[in-house]
Amino acid sequence: MSNANVVEKYLTALNNQDLDSIAALYAQDATVEDPVGTPLHTGIEAIREFYTKATSIKLTAELLGDVRCAGEFVAFPFSITLPSEHGPMCIEVIDTFKLNSEGKITEMKAYWNEQNTKLVK
Amino acid sequence: MSNANVVEKYLTALNNQDLDSIAALYAQDATVEDPVGTPLHTGIEAIREFYTKATSIKLTAELLGDVRCAGEFVAFPFSITLPSEHGPMCIEVIDTFKLNSEGKITEMKAYWNEQNTKLVK
Repeated sequence: MSNANVVEKYLTALNNQDLDSIAALYAQDATVEDPVGTPLHTGIEAIREFYTKATSIKLTAELLGDVRCAGEFVAFPFSITLPSEHGPMCIEVIDTFKLNSEGKITEMKAYWNEQNTKLVK
Repeated sequence: MSNANVVEKYLTALNNQDLDSIAALYAQDATVEDPVGTPLHTGIEAIREFYTKATSIKLTAELLGDVRCAGEFVAFPFSITLPSEHGPMCIEVIDTFKLNSEGKITEMKAYWNEQNTKLVK
């Protein structure tokens, strides 16, 4: 599986609220930092717990440009659209994944903050 | 200066072939990894040497979406369009900058590979 395919599987699983498929992309001892600058979620159980909230919401994840593969890493721009009390909100995010030789994600970093969050008109 | 402003200054300096302005954005002991997976350029002299080639070409650098600020980092998608023997080429890149308390870049990583390089029609 190419590193770009991992991104396709990840976004498909987010759109399908498919927690098991997301967890299956991660190595057992992986770390998730989302957003960057906040405490790490370390290990597959903590990662499953982190994604439990995201997969409980009907959201739309959409790739916004090329998947960039480089060395052991992949980086990609995407948007998450989700309901809010003021109507649909859209967040522009960049994720980086570090992958091991088996193609599992060992490190995920999500770059975004409130300024990347907008109400959809 | 906000971290997003560093990105604007960086892209403007690339478009202006302005090596001094690019170097001024970096800390003295900064590292550049471009593309990710290749040897680091360490220290401001090595970084100036690295950018000497990029600033000797008339290229166009264009932001392709939100600048994502997160913690000490900023990530952004952009394109570089430059001449080639087959006509203009466009490369889609994602850069991340780590910034110090003075707003200088201490670590730059550029995510791209050949698959992100296309002939412009």
